[in-house]
Amino acid sequence: MASTNRGVTQADIDYFTSAGISVVHSNEQLGGTYNTDYFDKYHGASQTIVFPKSTSQVSTILSHCNNSHISVVTQGGNSGTAGGAMAQQHELLLSLRDMDRIRDLDIVSGVVVAEAGCILETLDEHVRKFEYIVPVDLGAKKRCMIGGNVSTNAGGLRYLRYGSLHGNVLGLEVVLPDGQVLDSLFTLKKDASGYDVKQLFIGAEGTLGVVTAVSLALAPKPQSEQLVVLGMDAFVTIQRTFVLARQLLGEIVSAFEFWERRCNELVVQYEGYSSPLSATHEFHVLIETRGSLARHDWEKMDLFLARLRAEQLVGESRVVRDPAEMEQVWLFRSQMANAHMKSGCMHVYDFSLASKHQHELLRAVKAHLHRHKLYGCEQAAVRDVTFFGHVGDDNIHLQVIADEFGGAVEEAMEPWVYQWVGAHKGSVAAEHGLGAHKGQFLKYSKSPALVDTMKALKRLLDPNDIMNPGKHVARA
Amino acid sequence: MASTNRGVTQADIDYFTSAGISVVHSNEQLGGTYNTDYFDKYHGASQTIVFPKSTSQVSTILSHCNNSHISVVTQGGNSGTAGGAMAQQHELLLSLRDMDRIRDLDIVSGVVVAEAGCILETLDEHVRKFEYIVPVDLGAKKRCMIGGNVSTNAGGLRYLRYGSLHGNVLGLEVVLPDGQVLDSLFTLKKDASGYDVKQLFIGAEGTLGVVTAVSLALAPKPQSEQLVVLGMDAFVTIQRTFVLARQLLGEIVSAFEFWERRCNELVVQYEGYSSPLSATHEFHVLIETRGSLARHDWEKMDLFLARLRAEQLVGESRVVRDPAEMEQVWLFRSQMANAHMKSGCMHVYDFSLASKHQHELLRAVKAHLHRHKLYGCEQAAVRDVTFFGHVGDDNIHLQVIADEFGGAVEEAMEPWVYQWVGAHKGSVAAEHGLGAHKGQFLKYSKSPALVDTMKALKRLLDPNDIMNPGKHVARA
Repeated sequence: MASTNRGVTQADIDYFTSAGISVVHSNEQLGGTYNTDYFDKYHGASQTIVFPKSTSQVSTILSHCNNSHISVVTQGGNSGTAGGAMAQQHELLLSLRDMDRIRDLDIVSGVVVAEAGCILETLDEHVRKFEYIVPVDLGAKKRCMIGGNVSTNAGGLRYLRYGSLHGNVLGLEVVLPDGQVLDSLFTLKKDASGYDVKQLFIGAEGTLGVVTAVSLALAPKPQSEQLVVLGMDAFVTIQRTFVLARQLLGEIVSAFEFWERRCNELVVQYEGYSSPLSATHEFHVLIETRGSLARHDWEKMDLFLARLRAEQLVGESRVVRDPAEMEQVWLFRSQMANAHMKSGCMHVYDFSLASKHQHELLRAVKAHLHRHKLYGCEQAAVRDVTFFGHVGDDNIHLQVIADEFGGAVEEAMEPWVYQWVGAHKGSVAAEHGLGAHKGQFLKYSKSPALVDTMKALKRLLDPNDIMNPGKHVARA
Repeated sequence: MASTNRGVTQADIDYFTSAGISVVHSNEQLGGTYNTDYFDKYHGASQTIVFPKSTSQVSTILSHCNNSHISVVTQGGNSGTAGGAMAQQHELLLSLRDMDRIRDLDIVSGVVVAEAGCILETLDEHVRKFEYIVPVDLGAKKRCMIGGNVSTNAGGLRYLRYGSLHGNVLGLEVVLPDGQVLDSLFTLKKDASGYDVKQLFIGAEGTLGVVTAVSLALAPKPQSEQLVVLGMDAFVTIQRTFVLARQLLGEIVSAFEFWERRCNELVVQYEGYSSPLSATHEFHVLIETRGSLARHDWEKMDLFLARLRAEQLVGESRVVRDPAEMEQVWLFRSQMANAHMKSGCMHVYDFSLASKHQHELLRAVKAHLHRHKLYGCEQAAVRDVTFFGHVGDDNIHLQVIADEFGGAVEEAMEPWVYQWVGAHKGSVAAEHGLGAHKGQFLKYSKSPALVDTMKALKRLLDPNDIMNPGKHVARA
């Protein structure tokens, strides 16, 4: 997969510097900040990073790299978990950190135009002052940037309510590999004039160009929020509860998460948080509602909980009314990946899979690893196999915690688990993206004609293959 | 703009027939059914139409046409208003009428897989039996087909609530010009694996391939519906009312429409309906809410109406509680285009435009036509200039009713009105598409780099230019 493009030379650095572009170069490698990804699984080898301050500087950089055949890896908050923002060899890193202006906020229509380097939480805090929220929210919000959210087609915690970035992004400003600026920063909600070109860059993981700014339809800030945590002992109960939530909580449901017992234990053990429930349960379920009239919203929640009790679906239940306590519960939930990471080397999988197959997958993985003498036996290399997920989005995160990365565990898991998911009509990447590694498994969930079309699009838009080469569909 | 592709011969017809494909051919022209578009403005010249019954038959047709350089115009319900489904010369018409199976409906996840020829209303009625609705709804629902809705990126009446097809379409089955089937009929909600290729076909108006099936995320069927019609006398009042609706009706608002006095008069005059309000008002506003608990939903509506009265925003208001009456009001609204059509030759424009510029546009058009002695003077060619629209989507429909199509009126209006809209950062086509005519105005709202990229995508996916040639971006 090695690119034939050349490395960055002192002459390139001088060129960028003379154009007023901030460059950091090291004769060894740049530090871990830019060469280590979020889960400490992927490591980059870049020696040079540029920090453009404007779209025009991004254009200057790409134009030069395209003419000189220098590969470019774009980096936002570097909170990706699939290695997509790591330089594999001598690529130039392009950080959008310094492009963090909010260019425009229309408080009547609720549309924001923000530069790619805006940190998600900062952007959300800003628009909240004007009674809006950003319609995407995820655990890494303090670090991830809106350009990275768009480039990875981030899903997150409230996808169930606010939907896909393919629906919420109204326009993008993208610099193409040859330096041309593709300005589609449209700020109105409906548009049916020509091909919706911007959609190609949503989830392209920096392989087609650099997203420099985003026009986003905001959601109204909720006037009231409700939160409950439920203890359940069977997976099927979660599904019944979801059906009831859709029926009785209707349009106010904003999040519906579950995690299994072991996930809960790991957060308690490695992050030092108290469990949201006092007793032990096979599954924890978190349901959040957001509405416009607290009295109505709480009444719906009460009716819903009464129904759960009447159907004897729930063991312990905790209704959280205090906003600070709500934040604590969300903090607990958001520490799940970190806690796993601290407990060992985390092989993380991010699948879309019909809910009826989700528990089956967990059991299949455990049985498979057991057959390979890697789990549930003496001196097993795998410590834990866990899953948690976003109910209603059909998105689960599966963790295999081992003593090391790669090795026998990875060999046993891959491509086996991707084949399993493909055979059950799931997606091999639901919201984390393909990154450095998963492109090779794309064939298990996408047809050859579709993969070929993706590759043709890549050749069309990046003929010199300078944008994040060797990753994403390049590996398919 | 004439295509260099050849016409259909008897040998082609024999080939299709021998492959079991239903063909209708006339030595003159096919009747008005297939050669006349919805508003009777565009007329086709096709002599041959095929009615494939399967994806495989569509593949056979396209493969033959691609090899033989025969141009193909795809037709669904033929309810388009921009001439996109009209054959301009000797193209083969490909009707999806006979591909109308519902292939799958998952009643747990609420995802339907339907063939392109499913009539929107029929599909909606089917999924309603399982407590779901199709998240797109428009005036032509008795006639339009889901494949056409996708291919034109239809918006419609409840876009405000359910959002864009770019968010709601989970997957497509598309036959490419060379006959390859691009199967991305994914049925799960989240996917971040590779470029989202299907997005290119949403709104492509049959220029890149034939959409044969659609996987669609459904919305839950509302448990209660509320409807009010309000009489208002200033456009600015509508905007204040919308802000209050978003605040007080919050998550239950499902439609927010307005039409001006003259639109109301035309429906009464030409369709014979009674006005929804008894007195005369400059503007009629229709607000619909849909929720999961009638008692809460009506209480919110009452609070909202009380606030409108307290702020003295509304003249007459009519609260509609009876479902049959609600249907009558919607029927009135849906006759708006037809009534205009009956009153004269309708030059129809479909713009996205920030609400603050909408009334300004109407005034500018009237003044412009007056300056050209076409409106508001003796023997004026223009009888009426009207507008109505979907508030919150920033989408207005502007009608110029004249004695004839084309001529001095069209010359005065075009490209002037598209320039005006482009200069005010609107879109030249919000939900009707570019069709046969509007591609040439795309440059007023899209940059050259964007238009060039669109053209490059067309060349990549349809190198022989057989799919709906001479329309859409081909005219840009």
